[in-house]
Amino acid sequence: MTTTLSSLPTGEDIDTAIARGRRAYELDRKHVFHSWSAQEQINPMTVLAAKGSYLWDGDGNRLLDFSSQLVNTNIGHQHPKVVAAIAEQAATLCTVAPQHVNDARSEAARLIAERTPGDLNRIFFTNGGADAVEHAVRMARLHTGRYKVLSRYRSYHGGTDTAINLTGDPRRWPNDYASSGVVHFHGPFLYRSAFHAETEEQETQRALEHLERLIQMEGPNSFAAIILESVPGTAGIMVPPPGYMAGVREICDRYGIVFIADEVMAGFGRTGKWFAIDNFDVVPDLITFAKGVTSGYVPLGGVAINEAIYDTFADRAYPGGLTYSGHPLATACAVATINAMEDEGMVDNAARIGADVLGPGLRELATRHRSVGEVRGLGVFWAIELVADQATREPLAPYGGSSPAMAAVLAACKSGGLLPFANFNRIHAVPPCNVTDDEVAEGLRILDAALDVADQHAR
Amino acid sequence: MTTTLSSLPTGEDIDTAIARGRRAYELDRKHVFHSWSAQEQINPMTVLAAKGSYLWDGDGNRLLDFSSQLVNTNIGHQHPKVVAAIAEQAATLCTVAPQHVNDARSEAARLIAERTPGDLNRIFFTNGGADAVEHAVRMARLHTGRYKVLSRYRSYHGGTDTAINLTGDPRRWPNDYASSGVVHFHGPFLYRSAFHAETEEQETQRALEHLERLIQMEGPNSFAAIILESVPGTAGIMVPPPGYMAGVREICDRYGIVFIADEVMAGFGRTGKWFAIDNFDVVPDLITFAKGVTSGYVPLGGVAINEAIYDTFADRAYPGGLTYSGHPLATACAVATINAMEDEGMVDNAARIGADVLGPGLRELATRHRSVGEVRGLGVFWAIELVADQATREPLAPYGGSSPAMAAVLAACKSGGLLPFANFNRIHAVPPCNVTDDEVAEGLRILDAALDVADQHAR
Ligand SMILES: Cc1ncc(COP(=O)(O)O)c(C=O)c1O
Ligand SMILES: Cc1ncc(COP(=O)(O)O)c(C=O)c1O
Repeated sequence: MTTTLSSLPTGEDIDTAIARGRRAYELDRKHVFHSWSAQEQINPMTVLAAKGSYLWDGDGNRLLDFSSQLVNTNIGHQHPKVVAAIAEQAATLCTVAPQHVNDARSEAARLIAERTPGDLNRIFFTNGGADAVEHAVRMARLHTGRYKVLSRYRSYHGGTDTAINLTGDPRRWPNDYASSGVVHFHGPFLYRSAFHAETEEQETQRALEHLERLIQMEGPNSFAAIILESVPGTAGIMVPPPGYMAGVREICDRYGIVFIADEVMAGFGRTGKWFAIDNFDVVPDLITFAKGVTSGYVPLGGVAINEAIYDTFADRAYPGGLTYSGHPLATACAVATINAMEDEGMVDNAARIGADVLGPGLRELATRHRSVGEVRGLGVFWAIELVADQATREPLAPYGGSSPAMAAVLAACKSGGLLPFANFNRIHAVPPCNVTDDEVAEGLRILDAALDVADQHAR
Repeated sequence: MTTTLSSLPTGEDIDTAIARGRRAYELDRKHVFHSWSAQEQINPMTVLAAKGSYLWDGDGNRLLDFSSQLVNTNIGHQHPKVVAAIAEQAATLCTVAPQHVNDARSEAARLIAERTPGDLNRIFFTNGGADAVEHAVRMARLHTGRYKVLSRYRSYHGGTDTAINLTGDPRRWPNDYASSGVVHFHGPFLYRSAFHAETEEQETQRALEHLERLIQMEGPNSFAAIILESVPGTAGIMVPPPGYMAGVREICDRYGIVFIADEVMAGFGRTGKWFAIDNFDVVPDLITFAKGVTSGYVPLGGVAINEAIYDTFADRAYPGGLTYSGHPLATACAVATINAMEDEGMVDNAARIGADVLGPGLRELATRHRSVGEVRGLGVFWAIELVADQATREPLAPYGGSSPAMAAVLAACKSGGLLPFANFNRIHAVPPCNVTDDEVAEGLRILDAALDVADQHAR
């Protein structure tokens, strides 16, 4: 690929940047061990720079970032106010230990607590999503005095041992030593219904019946928690049908089970609400968050805790912690991120983009491409499910794998100038919450061309 | 307490700062959930500012920071070069996903790999220490095809489920569901020998015999890994006696067990070497690190991996990862921190301080205070073991607990102007690696007075 750029958005000369990228690539291949990968079988892309909804690869090509990296740069890249806030906090106070009080942490906790539903007003800060999930499950176990946890298939909850065992995708398999106490169930997913359902009403009712029957068979008093992504993300952005989340809340109440809403990916504006659970008017007992809380600019995660669970640890020590809990630089970044989202109406923008621009645009593509089995989502959180056959719904890549067809589609996106998030047979269109109408239109055009490539692999 | 300051090192007016601290405290008590605590039984100290070896509490009192927070600010507070590097990277590129190449991450990996012993040249980045430990154990399990892991009593390895179960201290107890596959053993600790040893030679030999006997009884082919802090930190800074670490290395080789050196606290200069394991001329298979790698300015941790274990994941996917693996802001901070330590000779300074100033000073205090059972350590990593009785070695607070006597000693430190790290019956003197001789002298003077208080509680 050739490029006609002379400089990057930072002002750096393009040839200097490309040389810098080459050296980074060499050192990466020598010294960096990559997540989820066979180390000698990858050929990673270099990122030289990023700004707003765009990034620049190692050859200086500009790509529209419809991945938001790992669905975390909810305010786009390099938001000037948040960059400034990081520099300012760095100059003031980078770090203190978690046992001391710090104003950045206090203010972040206040801003998050203000936005959580119900009485989830106590915030335990972690470094990312996985440890947030680990601590939420621990709180639930100690609060209930029970061990087992329910989690759905087609879910992702993180990479540490407990979090990966909660996960309902193939990445769990090599980590499952049958000792984690997790029982998996099928959640609602009408397009590939585990319940032979034909309508959303049926799917909701049967999925709830399935869950409750499992609880009856496994022991109604044995579960500490049910953990559910409010909208499952990596697994396919399956928005729960009406009534499902409320039904889960009822089941939790009936059996004394803690309801953990995992909002690591779906929270902080992604679905057009501050928290995705607010789409369903349900109040969970614990919310886990990460990613969007700082737009990923500084690592941060956490658990929002209701008063009942807080009370369990009012006079009894909570047996968990970490060196960087409530890290000043990270929480200052959260403060700036939340304020920028608020001031610039980004959550509303995400809702509007989903309802008026990206959703309709993707549905229109679906009518014209035989490789598209379904598009689904809300806000800036959309999945395109690619199939080899619309009638049989045979996926374009197998569950847990990739395929030459999917590789060709992704290559077409990239050569067209688009970086989507991809998983198995799906492409996710997950731009930042402050994406513009024009950027969405550009993304849809590139997707349209890439779907022509997919169509060649579909019957 | 009253203060005569008019401004903080940031130039902020002191009354403004104190008002800011008050509001931070109020919001903290309303919204922040603290690590390892009964939430209603704590009265946390506010930190208004910090610089070098000092910090300022909520009343504007200056304290000499002999805790390095959680033993992580190895370059002291607010090092100007590292603060500038954070601002610079923030302005350039805050974040990219782990699957892409980024120059800050590549350079950090190179600088770390250059400093690790042997062929531990591949770096997997995590957010902190606990997840580093989780991933190291996972690598060992998949590399060996075995599940069980050996870890010593009197150790700390982190707060997530696997890490806390590896931990050999009371914080494990409420988290132990007897399913973690960890077998604990007694490590060398001559002052409280589990082996009735009277000399270091005996302690080494008997501790190794104990370990090997345990392996024989548990199954010589059943262990994936032995994890050991190169110098156990939180549990009491028990420097392993000569021959012990080499003996563990031999045992690992004999039984095909992966040797994980946990350097989260001991690494990056703390012991007067880049890695504490270098004090023993032993090469482990995996090293976990965090804390000092960025001096805690931005959360970062990781695992250094040798070629044999890397090869296991050359053509087979490593089933683990996290959103912020190799985060650009965090790794840029690591680059600046390592370069600052190197350029300013901080590692050598730590060695010199330990050998010539802090070590001799603490030993001198021990001769004059009947409450001091033992002082031990190296570099800027020292423990003062407080006892009610030098003859019986009865600790001044019970294992896993505190006591009015210890509370009085800590209050005396604080009112004298010193913030130490405390655990059970111990005070740890763990200043930054670039602490000056004068600061150490000041700390020793304050400790001297505080030990007078301790003496009142000793027979
Ligand atoms: C729903 C959900 N939970 C937890 C996690 C884990 O977060 P992290 O990668 O920060 O550990 C993720 C990451 O993608 C996620 O999507
Ligand atoms: C030796 C050791 N390992 C692991 C950890 C856990 O690190 P973190 O608190 O960053 O998770 C610590 C923290 O004190 C530690 O001292």
